Amino acid sequence: MCRFLAYRGEPIFLADLVCAPAHSLVHQSLHAVEAKTGTNGDGFGIGWYGERPEPGIYREVRPAWSDENLRSLCDQVRSGLFFAHVRASTGTSTTRANCHPFAHGRHLFMHNGQIGGYARIKRRLEALIPDDLYDGRLGTTDSEAIFLAALASGLKDDPVAAMARTLKLVRGLMNEAGIEEPLRFTAAVTDGDSLWAYRWACDGKPPTLYFREENGSLLVVSEPIDDKDRGWQEVPKGCTLVASAKGGIEVQCLNEAMNRLAA
Amino acid sequence: MCRFLAYRGEPIFLADLVCAPAHSLVHQSLHAVEAKTGTNGDGFGIGWYGERPEPGIYREVRPAWSDENLRSLCDQVRSGLFFAHVRASTGTSTTRANCHPFAHGRHLFMHNGQIGGYARIKRRLEALIPDDLYDGRLGTTDSEAIFLAALASGLKDDPVAAMARTLKLVRGLMNEAGIEEPLRFTAAVTDGDSLWAYRWACDGKPPTLYFREENGSLLVVSEPIDDKDRGWQEVPKGCTLVASAKGGIEVQCLNEAMNRLAA
Amino acid sequence: MCRFLAYRGEPIFLADLVCAPAHSLVHQSLHAVEAKTGTNGDGFGIGWYGERPEPGIYREVRPAWSDENLRSLCDQVRSGLFFAHVRASTGTSTTRANCHPFAHGRHLFMHNGQIGGYARIKRRLEALIPDDLYDGRLGTTDSEAIFLAALASGLKDDPVAAMARTLKLVRGLMNEAGIEEPLRFTAAVTDGDSLWAYRWACDGKPPTLYFREENGSLLVVSEPIDDKDRGWQEVPKGCTLVASAKGGIEVQCLNEAMNRLAA
Amino acid sequence: MCRFLAYRGEPIFLADLVCAPAHSLVHQSLHAVEAKTGTNGDGFGIGWYGERPEPGIYREVRPAWSDENLRSLCDQVRSGLFFAHVRASTGTSTTRANCHPFAHGRHLFMHNGQIGGYARIKRRLEALIPDDLYDGRLGTTDSEAIFLAALASGLKDDPVAAMARTLKLVRGLMNEAGIEEPLRFTAAVTDGDSLWAYRWACDGKPPTLYFREENGSLLVVSEPIDDKDRGWQEVPKGCTLVASAKGGIEVQCLNEAMNRLAA
Repeated sequence: MCRFLAYRGEPIFLADLVCAPAHSLVHQSLHAVEAKTGTNGDGFGIGWYGERPEPGIYREVRPAWSDENLRSLCDQVRSGLFFAHVRASTGTSTTRANCHPFAHGRHLFMHNGQIGGYARIKRRLEALIPDDLYDGRLGTTDSEAIFLAALASGLKDDPVAAMARTLKLVRGLMNEAGIEEPLRFTAAVTDGDSLWAYRWACDGKPPTLYFREENGSLLVVSEPIDDKDRGWQEVPKGCTLVASAKGGIEVQCLNEAMNRLAA
Repeated sequence: MCRFLAYRGEPIFLADLVCAPAHSLVHQSLHAVEAKTGTNGDGFGIGWYGERPEPGIYREVRPAWSDENLRSLCDQVRSGLFFAHVRASTGTSTTRANCHPFAHGRHLFMHNGQIGGYARIKRRLEALIPDDLYDGRLGTTDSEAIFLAALASGLKDDPVAAMARTLKLVRGLMNEAGIEEPLRFTAAVTDGDSLWAYRWACDGKPPTLYFREENGSLLVVSEPIDDKDRGWQEVPKGCTLVASAKGGIEVQCLNEAMNRLAA
Repeated sequence: MCRFLAYRGEPIFLADLVCAPAHSLVHQSLHAVEAKTGTNGDGFGIGWYGERPEPGIYREVRPAWSDENLRSLCDQVRSGLFFAHVRASTGTSTTRANCHPFAHGRHLFMHNGQIGGYARIKRRLEALIPDDLYDGRLGTTDSEAIFLAALASGLKDDPVAAMARTLKLVRGLMNEAGIEEPLRFTAAVTDGDSLWAYRWACDGKPPTLYFREENGSLLVVSEPIDDKDRGWQEVPKGCTLVASAKGGIEVQCLNEAMNRLAA
Repeated sequence: MCRFLAYRGEPIFLADLVCAPAHSLVHQSLHAVEAKTGTNGDGFGIGWYGERPEPGIYREVRPAWSDENLRSLCDQVRSGLFFAHVRASTGTSTTRANCHPFAHGRHLFMHNGQIGGYARIKRRLEALIPDDLYDGRLGTTDSEAIFLAALASGLKDDPVAAMARTLKLVRGLMNEAGIEEPLRFTAAVTDGDSLWAYRWACDGKPPTLYFREENGSLLVVSEPIDDKDRGWQEVPKGCTLVASAKGGIEVQCLNEAMNRLAA
């Protein structure tokens, strides 16, 4: 279980959300509250959009709480759209390439959750990723594999349907392999303009996911970074929060998208 | 606040104590019980005596719980005298050179505690270390400075009196600087044969320290690595556990040694 | 292009070969002579057999020349069979999991060379590795993929034929993908008793490989670690050096094994 | 011996100088031409001024050539004043805190050179640094010590005279200690507006230092990053290049400043 944060709005310094708040992400790297694991010390990463079409990425294997570089970057970098993630590994090793967010072209992806029995379907899952995307697989995590599989399933064109297809596909592989552990998936995706945040689990127990709108900005978090009663709304289970480039925010039903596929 | 473990006895694999027990040191790096900080993820180190007069040292900046090298080493290395330490920094940066144990010739030293207001006396403390010892200062911690100051105060010849002198000296610098934060010091020293473990604080609140004798072996820990009722004895506050090369174990009064100096 | 060293014989301290000689492997990490790349600073690793059936492994992403832990370990660890490797990446990232040697059960493998156009066949190569072996794929290199594919091809039972089959298989994938860059492969394998060292390339230009026998010990290196005229023999191109557990050393023709497969 | 680069002018992406040119600093980390050591793989750092008064800092212990984070940052960060440095250690360990540039408030400092016999005067040199500055000593290098000593000598007010005083002071300590190895010092300092680059050695053999003016921008380098005949001028030995905030560039005599002190 990991912790993450996504921001879209007026450009602000990353430090304002990543380092400063009482329950900032850096704080959560040492003391998460709603996570199964209180410590998220298996690496971290930030991804942000600046003047280039592609996002900047800084990922490290050390815990976020002691990384001087992270503090300095967050103090300097101002961005209107950024992701930040602190990692608690579910088995794969602590390398930079296994830290979130993952980037592909203009896209960023980060994940909190787990493919149950991943080791038993890893190779088959990877085999479904086309060569041109697979070349971008730099690490070995289930999270990165889901991201690349989702890109292959049309993430750029229809992010909700594509993710539904991907989760269905992963579930299929799990069923074939007789895996009983659940697939739990809370994640965020952006193409540099719009933002999608998913919350789904095959056993109805997806990790927590919250958002807050304030003065035209949107903040999406795995757990509140300040007082719980300060306007945080839960993303309902089985749903996707869609914040389109034009600014409108709506909650779509991911379950429904999956059911349509099943039919 | 850090956690540590020292072993002397029949040669055993380090893994038997560092990795295997329910509350092993690796476990404590993520979940310490009696520490003020539950997570000790700011680097770690092991030091052990093998065929050479000087001990081997492995120190890393990553958390112990995710370090594959540590697991492999502890599985391979068998030793009759070794130290292991997981670090929770009290301010200095997370570098290998700031991780315990510290080595000097045949000696090893590790520490749990803190010099209150260290920044205000650091330079003066360092100025007291002779050049030949100061050349061995590789990091910037208060712990390493105490070790080198203790070596300068005669640690090799009279480990209890020398440490009493050193603590007195540090207290003197703190007083001169008007520092009100306490000096707390729980530490272990070995010369490759004998072992000393100190527990002292100027405010009567030194970090915990336990030991257990079993079939001729001695285990000294900052907190029990298995059930608390399995023969663990507390080292009393203000005392030093002395396990001499010949095998005898006794508890000496460190306070008394300090009082003698005061007189 | 990397540099490596394998030793089998009377137990010696690793430092005697890895750190001490004029052209030791640590020296070669900064100044290799016969390598296309003079600097091998993209991580390193050692693997050695001690009291356990499985070898110990220490791998790090920093250059070997500045790693204090490596120096300390090589000073302490004495072994009758060990591998050491300094890495110059051919494209994959610098993570511990991408450093050699790779371990599987009792086996160690290390490699100097490259699968030309690896990115274009990576997924297909991985798809050939059975799930139980694939679960042991911790990194993303071509080297580790060859090792696992070779294990799947019977490396444990017939190391020469299995490697011939594996190289043939990789060549087949390269041909299918229309890859024109060569496959070059100089590698060493051990099961903890016997040792095999391969030198082969599809374009007749495999990386260098030397060995020296001395007082019953065998040393295999990518380039001499001391004066070239001190008894070093070249492993001929297209050949495998076989040092069986019983001590006999012979050079077998790998090309022939491959030709038999072609027939 | 290290390699470095300083830029002041129209805001540009750091990548344009640090990563892109044929002999970019990243290239020099692996293949320096004019350095005594061809490889500068003992860590690196960048410092840049953005929207904050204080500069941003990114320092890492890995070689610059393989650091994905460095590439991404240099692609994203645009600045009108920045420093970049690749390190070849002269003895102190490879930690982030020992990597250049060093920061203090608005100031940045980086260095190529060495205090001969540093170990023998380290403690005395440190003792000359006032406590408030010494608290900012995070590492153990001679370079950082010179920087802090120069700040204590008035670097903020009169950078040329203060550096002359500091070098004189260091020479004094070296003479007292009977050190025969030379003091060689090529360095750059900025306060966020103006820039100073020093080239001096007690034996008349300071490391190389070049600069180029182009369309109102100034580039200072330890060796040219593109063709040597493209307008590079050498900073003469014993001189300081002064680029004041108003834009004028002049070369001042550091030797003279030192002689005045001697009088």
